[in-house]
Amino acid sequence: MKKIKIVTIGGGSSYTPELIEGFIKRRDELPIKELWLVDIEEGREKLEIVGAMAKRMVKAAGVDWEVKLTLDRREALKDADFVSTQFRVGLLPARIKDERIPLSHGIVGQETNGAGGMFKAFRTIPVILDIIDDMRELCPNAWLVNFTNPAGMITEAAINYGGWERTVGLCNVPINSIIKCAEVLQVPQTELFFKFAGLNHFHWHRVWDKQGNERTAELIEKMYNPELAQSDGKSEVANIKDIKFNYEQIKDSGILPCPYHRYYYATDDMLESELEEYKKNGTRAEVVKQTEAKLFELYKDPKLDYKPEQLTKRGGTHYSDAACELITSIYNDKRSEMVVSTKNKGAIEDLPYDAIVEISSIITSNGPQPINWGRFEPAARGMVQLMKGMEETTISAAVTGNYGRALHAFTINPLVPSGKIAKDLLNELLLAHKKHLPQFKDTIEKLEILEK
Amino acid sequence: MKKIKIVTIGGGSSYTPELIEGFIKRRDELPIKELWLVDIEEGREKLEIVGAMAKRMVKAAGVDWEVKLTLDRREALKDADFVSTQFRVGLLPARIKDERIPLSHGIVGQETNGAGGMFKAFRTIPVILDIIDDMRELCPNAWLVNFTNPAGMITEAAINYGGWERTVGLCNVPINSIIKCAEVLQVPQTELFFKFAGLNHFHWHRVWDKQGNERTAELIEKMYNPELAQSDGKSEVANIKDIKFNYEQIKDSGILPCPYHRYYYATDDMLESELEEYKKNGTRAEVVKQTEAKLFELYKDPKLDYKPEQLTKRGGTHYSDAACELITSIYNDKRSEMVVSTKNKGAIEDLPYDAIVEISSIITSNGPQPINWGRFEPAARGMVQLMKGMEETTISAAVTGNYGRALHAFTINPLVPSGKIAKDLLNELLLAHKKHLPQFKDTIEKLEILEK
Amino acid sequence: MKKIKIVTIGGGSSYTPELIEGFIKRRDELPIKELWLVDIEEGREKLEIVGAMAKRMVKAAGVDWEVKLTLDRREALKDADFVSTQFRVGLLPARIKDERIPLSHGIVGQETNGAGGMFKAFRTIPVILDIIDDMRELCPNAWLVNFTNPAGMITEAAINYGGWERTVGLCNVPINSIIKCAEVLQVPQTELFFKFAGLNHFHWHRVWDKQGNERTAELIEKMYNPELAQSDGKSEVANIKDIKFNYEQIKDSGILPCPYHRYYYATDDMLESELEEYKKNGTRAEVVKQTEAKLFELYKDPKLDYKPEQLTKRGGTHYSDAACELITSIYNDKRSEMVVSTKNKGAIEDLPYDAIVEISSIITSNGPQPINWGRFEPAARGMVQLMKGMEETTISAAVTGNYGRALHAFTINPLVPSGKIAKDLLNELLLAHKKHLPQFKDTIEKLEILEK
Amino acid sequence: MKKIKIVTIGGGSSYTPELIEGFIKRRDELPIKELWLVDIEEGREKLEIVGAMAKRMVKAAGVDWEVKLTLDRREALKDADFVSTQFRVGLLPARIKDERIPLSHGIVGQETNGAGGMFKAFRTIPVILDIIDDMRELCPNAWLVNFTNPAGMITEAAINYGGWERTVGLCNVPINSIIKCAEVLQVPQTELFFKFAGLNHFHWHRVWDKQGNERTAELIEKMYNPELAQSDGKSEVANIKDIKFNYEQIKDSGILPCPYHRYYYATDDMLESELEEYKKNGTRAEVVKQTEAKLFELYKDPKLDYKPEQLTKRGGTHYSDAACELITSIYNDKRSEMVVSTKNKGAIEDLPYDAIVEISSIITSNGPQPINWGRFEPAARGMVQLMKGMEETTISAAVTGNYGRALHAFTINPLVPSGKIAKDLLNELLLAHKKHLPQFKDTIEKLEILEK
Repeated sequence: MKKIKIVTIGGGSSYTPELIEGFIKRRDELPIKELWLVDIEEGREKLEIVGAMAKRMVKAAGVDWEVKLTLDRREALKDADFVSTQFRVGLLPARIKDERIPLSHGIVGQETNGAGGMFKAFRTIPVILDIIDDMRELCPNAWLVNFTNPAGMITEAAINYGGWERTVGLCNVPINSIIKCAEVLQVPQTELFFKFAGLNHFHWHRVWDKQGNERTAELIEKMYNPELAQSDGKSEVANIKDIKFNYEQIKDSGILPCPYHRYYYATDDMLESELEEYKKNGTRAEVVKQTEAKLFELYKDPKLDYKPEQLTKRGGTHYSDAACELITSIYNDKRSEMVVSTKNKGAIEDLPYDAIVEISSIITSNGPQPINWGRFEPAARGMVQLMKGMEETTISAAVTGNYGRALHAFTINPLVPSGKIAKDLLNELLLAHKKHLPQFKDTIEKLEILEK
Repeated sequence: MKKIKIVTIGGGSSYTPELIEGFIKRRDELPIKELWLVDIEEGREKLEIVGAMAKRMVKAAGVDWEVKLTLDRREALKDADFVSTQFRVGLLPARIKDERIPLSHGIVGQETNGAGGMFKAFRTIPVILDIIDDMRELCPNAWLVNFTNPAGMITEAAINYGGWERTVGLCNVPINSIIKCAEVLQVPQTELFFKFAGLNHFHWHRVWDKQGNERTAELIEKMYNPELAQSDGKSEVANIKDIKFNYEQIKDSGILPCPYHRYYYATDDMLESELEEYKKNGTRAEVVKQTEAKLFELYKDPKLDYKPEQLTKRGGTHYSDAACELITSIYNDKRSEMVVSTKNKGAIEDLPYDAIVEISSIITSNGPQPINWGRFEPAARGMVQLMKGMEETTISAAVTGNYGRALHAFTINPLVPSGKIAKDLLNELLLAHKKHLPQFKDTIEKLEILEK
Repeated sequence: MKKIKIVTIGGGSSYTPELIEGFIKRRDELPIKELWLVDIEEGREKLEIVGAMAKRMVKAAGVDWEVKLTLDRREALKDADFVSTQFRVGLLPARIKDERIPLSHGIVGQETNGAGGMFKAFRTIPVILDIIDDMRELCPNAWLVNFTNPAGMITEAAINYGGWERTVGLCNVPINSIIKCAEVLQVPQTELFFKFAGLNHFHWHRVWDKQGNERTAELIEKMYNPELAQSDGKSEVANIKDIKFNYEQIKDSGILPCPYHRYYYATDDMLESELEEYKKNGTRAEVVKQTEAKLFELYKDPKLDYKPEQLTKRGGTHYSDAACELITSIYNDKRSEMVVSTKNKGAIEDLPYDAIVEISSIITSNGPQPINWGRFEPAARGMVQLMKGMEETTISAAVTGNYGRALHAFTINPLVPSGKIAKDLLNELLLAHKKHLPQFKDTIEKLEILEK
Repeated sequence: MKKIKIVTIGGGSSYTPELIEGFIKRRDELPIKELWLVDIEEGREKLEIVGAMAKRMVKAAGVDWEVKLTLDRREALKDADFVSTQFRVGLLPARIKDERIPLSHGIVGQETNGAGGMFKAFRTIPVILDIIDDMRELCPNAWLVNFTNPAGMITEAAINYGGWERTVGLCNVPINSIIKCAEVLQVPQTELFFKFAGLNHFHWHRVWDKQGNERTAELIEKMYNPELAQSDGKSEVANIKDIKFNYEQIKDSGILPCPYHRYYYATDDMLESELEEYKKNGTRAEVVKQTEAKLFELYKDPKLDYKPEQLTKRGGTHYSDAACELITSIYNDKRSEMVVSTKNKGAIEDLPYDAIVEISSIITSNGPQPINWGRFEPAARGMVQLMKGMEETTISAAVTGNYGRALHAFTINPLVPSGKIAKDLLNELLLAHKKHLPQFKDTIEKLEILEK
């Protein structure tokens, strides 16, 4: 059994301990030789802290893996078997801008949807394409496991523009929804069958039990009927508040929404809640910044050699575990059922053949094999088609630096206003993120001249 | 050559003189025997005024057509060859509500788009299906020419729910766009080739000249580049203000928008302008009401036997002329190129096979033959797919009276907010239009109880 | 755990012992209460022989299942959980005609493809629709497991005409291909991942190993390259001779054919071999008849209480085992990977959405979940599309008794000649099968008059 | 009005006088400056004869066009506005082989369908791609009007492999069908509306009259019901014998076949007739060779300055006239309704988006605009899908010289046997056409070694 080399780009992330824990849990299935944590100069300090902790965790687990820290991405990629990406271009300060600037205009400020998520795509796509260029040369058979957000668009860019077919996108939302459904039904997760389909942060799911009965309608009642549902103010994922959907609308859809659907199906209510939160605590990014600072303080403790409880409270819980499971399933041809971002090829009839979709799949040694979904009803169909059009337009703008295309993507995103204000917001964000948007250089220069 | 019987439902409309004029212009092509103007009891006075005028026009033209006025729809439909529909369920007071209620919440109030247009569909669809039931019995071979708004949805209901394949939907927007393009290019309209595709009030077009050169990009520059375009504050249609599109976005699309696209691509700017107008002059419906009153005063003049100039200033100009041309072209197998609402059947690849689309067609004796369009680019594709999903959901709600479905349609319409406010607005409109919404009877009764 | 009732229609079949053995093998997973073997009056003797043997097998296995024999289908169906169908309308004499008549014209005589298979569909479809009518009344939640041939067409009729969504079609060809591939690669079957797609008796497959490498091309070399392949004159299935494919053509396709593809890709060679066989031994049906007679002689032995070795030599080996595995997997939500006939819903992009296809699926308690396949290359695509058009036309003819449609289906089937001879053959077969073709009664009467 | 330059490649063809006549008829619409007839060294003599005659015709017509004869294709192409192609690679001797070799094996020998047509594609596609390379350099805006057979495949190669979007394929079959229908209905051609769809030599049509009534069923009766139809032994086109279709099958299809459908729907009957003809008169090519020789004798007459009656009797009548009408319609943006080979783009739902189809179109200055067709019924759908798969496979083999692909195309063509004989026939034809198949050089060399 060939031993494997795993490389994590953005290895200095506060999530890394979860990733290490995930690998340790699967030590019997996954014969790791080397585990490389890669970061950039600006992340050196974090990399050193979290890297040292990773080494302690590995040592405590009694496995013989080599944990290597480096700022030299090319050195790390050489002969890699799996490359996972969890980097953030511009780090948290960029996220703060993604959230603060829209909110200051009274517009949804959310880093994976709306204007913020689109700018995260603009910053990240050129970098992921660079990484792929290196991979083509240094590890042509490696799998790229992307959990950098917006995960769907980054995966689509990697596959359709980078030509890296062995890319799989991951997100922790589906697994959280699965856990939630099992809780609500009081049925073990393994005794339920789930079908997810849609796009990253914009998918739906249906649920069946072991007796073959569909339980979706019951879940809609128990989760969304205001007369039946009991809420603790939290949705399935920690970073999305449990703003109420209109129950009758969800019931009409007949399928279970993802927590992010609130942004689209209760836009004003979400915005109001975000603005309130913003006034109280600043942006979510600023809250995260504080959490992270505390986590890194913990990580510095030379006695800490396991994932601390506090990490679980961040929004991304189960993320890294999903990545470990995916890698294990590919390596061992386990045929696990997972929800991943992968090529559509007709599995969702309503979306383009070559589009990247998020869909329940069987994970084989040859990658994800989507379970066929079929068609959506007209209302969900229309929304998911719009979102895919928006994604494709955003990716194309990210790759080409075409200003009109970026504006077009803004115009059609339901979370971004259209018209004059769309343009003002786009311009302000372009200027704010100048440093990380080489593809928009000419446009930004023109805007700077106009500013003066 | 068999003489024909034409029936106009909503014959008391102020537009009727344009229709009569249109038929008179085509007297050599169209051997009319009888022309029936049908209306309901509430419209009796208008019918008598405009009917008398129609008779004067016919007499002045020296043709031997029998003009008949009736409140008995079934008498009129017997053996009809063509039935045109220009009625308005609830008359102008209903339109006032469609516009005023949304505006009072700070939401776009427009009778063919957004909440207003959806309620117009809810009121009209049961009536058009009734008319079709009569036609099945009384004139099974007649063509139904619909120009009641929202024309796309009414046509889809007539064909896909009523099963009346011989329905054609008409709108005056395309012809106004054609006139405008010819003006801007300073080329006779007949020397240009136009391809329109999309949905009613949501379509795009491309233009070529006699030398085979596409002129679309040039038109985008001349009409939408702020440095080149000269505007008189009016768009192609009288009732849409010339709010500026973002030129760079239109340029990126590469195709010409319809004037109603402003509602979607410059939503806030349109809303602001509407609210301003509303404060100054009340709703558009109230303005129209005054215009209509003046028109009917004119029509009462027993000496007036031609279409007065003032009618042209209403938004619907060229509408009735389009209807006359359509009827003539079907009757004579003229193969005219017209833009109509008809079944897609793959002409627009991105929309469902059975959907009704608005598209350039050749009009034969067998009805419209769409000229194949192909695919849209992702941004336009996403929007038109969303709008079709919204239309289908709206029509289904109109037919079934399903409250959740109506709310779902509201939720996904880009001109209606989602979440709590969507529900409040829906409920308020349901109560306001109670009289004309028999299919929502149960829901409305529940709402009334809650109100108390 | 609810105990289950299983009903087998055509229970007097010589295959029944394999079915019983399959259930016994799975006794720990499948809590059977009653096992009903149903047959018709003409099959009474066989039913009694094989039924007695089934009882001995069950007894020997020490399980407490009730084995019931009946000629009353409705009694058996009452409250059934699973209904399997393995009947043959007209019994072996009908099959003899299906084979002998075409061969006598020098045309392929094969009971599941070509003229023979089409007549089997004509005879069987009215009966399966009758069974479904009974099921609707007597066991509305039962699963229908069809392995009556032509399995794809019968399944499509059951689902799309009978409206019985809970139908799954089964065939033993895929499992035989799986066994063969594992043998050729010398890799355990469980360490390979297979994707099958196409139609019943007209599908292809691709194979990957545990390391994620596709082994399809290697299998093509080892199985079809005349310089490398070693043949014992048998194909994967006992009833198909190992006539050589053109290796270069298979290599160009890049995917593995099913053994029945020889009929289409080496038509003359197959025909020649069939004719030779026919001259020597009569039709395949006649050979089978003798084999069956011997089997029933064996079955009569009151000491025989296990499946005899001789049964394995019939063409259908693994068939019944597949049925047992399917039932077990549905009952236990096992998520087994199986190749079944089920609704396409876009899993194969090139075929109609509602078509029944044969495809690798995950078997859940809610039935088969197809693994998405995508598109075929043009050459395979064209053939599978033609075959689906032929199947749809055949089914429609079987349901309506439309003579022109039957002739049309004959005309486009690549194994049936077109033109004058197609018509002669169709007429001769209609007359020969008169008794079992009530839907073609009028046509057959006309033909009889002409004959005279 | 810019004067135009027209270039005809294969100008030495016996059809050239029809082309010249066609241009002369349209002299008022088409301001020709230069008319170049291009041929190759082997065709020099014919070019001189027919070129001289063309000059006489032009002179007699009193127009001032310059008729130029050349063997230098590049000189001719310089600044051309329209390039028409009517060349035959390998001249009639190649056609003789295409027909004789299959017939000698008892296989349909027809130069546009089956093995013959496929080899014509193999020989012609490399040449058309060469011509396009020249055009890219010398006349980048010219229209390519192809009527070299197999016209559909050549057009698809030109557009999809050559990238020459301004290619239109033409065939004389549709216009002959139109003339025939008008005759049978005794209605002027201009009072009928036709919709054709399918592939070149494999299309269907529907017909409506001026009153909007579909006349297709009536035409099927009058043309194909043996009790009603009166035949003079000729089909719509001179070179296809009026072999009887099975009337019931045509009636079931509900649409009118093209005369070439006989090859597929009455294969044996056509083959029998061809073999009989072959025994009596040799191949069709040999008959044509004699006809041609006689035509050229006529053309030599220095007094002949008009198209002789005898030319009409060749199979291709109306071909050149169609080319002239197409050029005139593009030049003048006439919007004529014509049946052409052009890109599908969804006009026929059942065929790939990018495929070339033969379809009724409006001819504008921007080229053909297909009239949307929709879907076929399953039986016709399956056949046309198979044929498109066969065409794509053939074109790909022609471009790449891939032997397996060529064999695969042979295998799936319904007019070519599959299996061993397919391979033998392919090999024999490859050797026979060696000189004109540079792309198959390696394969042919291997075959020659094997032969020895």
